[in-house]
Amino acid sequence: MGVMSYFKSPDAIKAFFEREGQKVVYDKNQTFVRPDDPRPWVYVLQEGLVAASFNFENGTKCILGYFIPNTVFAQNRSFYENDGGGLEYTTVTKAVIYRLHRDTFLKQVENDPAFNREYLHNVSQFRIFTTDRAICLAENRIHNRCIRWLMLMANYYSEPVGKGSRIIIPFTQGTIAEFLSVSRESVSKVIHSLVQDGHISIHRKQITITNVARLRDLLEA
Amino acid sequence: MGVMSYFKSPDAIKAFFEREGQKVVYDKNQTFVRPDDPRPWVYVLQEGLVAASFNFENGTKCILGYFIPNTVFAQNRSFYENDGGGLEYTTVTKAVIYRLHRDTFLKQVENDPAFNREYLHNVSQFRIFTTDRAICLAENRIHNRCIRWLMLMANYYSEPVGKGSRIIIPFTQGTIAEFLSVSRESVSKVIHSLVQDGHISIHRKQITITNVARLRDLLEA
Repeated sequence: MGVMSYFKSPDAIKAFFEREGQKVVYDKNQTFVRPDDPRPWVYVLQEGLVAASFNFENGTKCILGYFIPNTVFAQNRSFYENDGGGLEYTTVTKAVIYRLHRDTFLKQVENDPAFNREYLHNVSQFRIFTTDRAICLAENRIHNRCIRWLMLMANYYSEPVGKGSRIIIPFTQGTIAEFLSVSRESVSKVIHSLVQDGHISIHRKQITITNVARLRDLLEA
Repeated sequence: MGVMSYFKSPDAIKAFFEREGQKVVYDKNQTFVRPDDPRPWVYVLQEGLVAASFNFENGTKCILGYFIPNTVFAQNRSFYENDGGGLEYTTVTKAVIYRLHRDTFLKQVENDPAFNREYLHNVSQFRIFTTDRAICLAENRIHNRCIRWLMLMANYYSEPVGKGSRIIIPFTQGTIAEFLSVSRESVSKVIHSLVQDGHISIHRKQITITNVARLRDLLEA
């Protein structure tokens, strides 16, 4: 559990990006990758928080995940032409990012065993995260979808605080709704009851889960 | 497009599994990986079709994806303790599978560059697939979710037939519903209208998409 044990710090990758890459700094709320942007960058986030989201035809948006420091991520279609693309990346806070051209990146994956190992780990972890993410969205009942969201946050984006776990991503009811692809009203109701029952507490945009081990028991059969 | 260009045949991996692995043959409808099964296998599917699904607390099931020949896949928690697990793998048809112990597999990933390249490609493609899968589930409107299901099938699991594309996975309305995590009744209605309007045709369990390039236009704003 906890962030650091999960997305392990990719030291060889970071060192290479800091040496060979281009440093870019974005203010908060900047969309720096658009769905059809053709530039073939690979990124390492050094500081800050980035949301990856998808825009539907009717203008609603679903946040699929977040990049936290030390994660490696690529532009749509950087590696594969048949990557459906369509994701956009937006800074949630001010972000410091290093970027490298795909070709330079892939050459290093080929030639540096430590770099290769870290990248394979990174991709594998994202694969597991995205599977858990899909399971969360496959849950039809809003109450259970909210519980699975908390389980996901506990597993991938949290740090221990006392006996609880604090989610390191700031959430409003609006962003929870965008993450769960449901209406703000229905999220509001579930969140209210979780707070009332003492399962979570919210201070500004910081959510603390009282007891991660007991989340699973809150799933309704 | 098309299966073969997408999940490229991992020749080095296949040769290694055929030489070092254990060959297992399963009849159709056999669940050979259960959510809490601790055995650390890595698999290559040689022949047949395997569904990966998740069971919810209320007994409903969501099919997350399919493994087709030449894909490499691992048991829950084979690689990472924090893999939430919970997926089960079930044969859809008779399947011929090679399996290897995780440690043997990972050693080969370290030591054989061709093996490494193919495995990284495989994991990356699954990562992209799973993102598209999550986007499909994030779509709330049943009509659009069905269209995104067809787009997903066209992109990952189809072969050209005449001017159309045939989905290589047999689907009933029940399995479409399990894939989309919606009721069979609502799927039935959308499928019926897609057939009526000539966008798809169904022969036994084989679905042919008339014009893949026009699927996107069917998404309702």
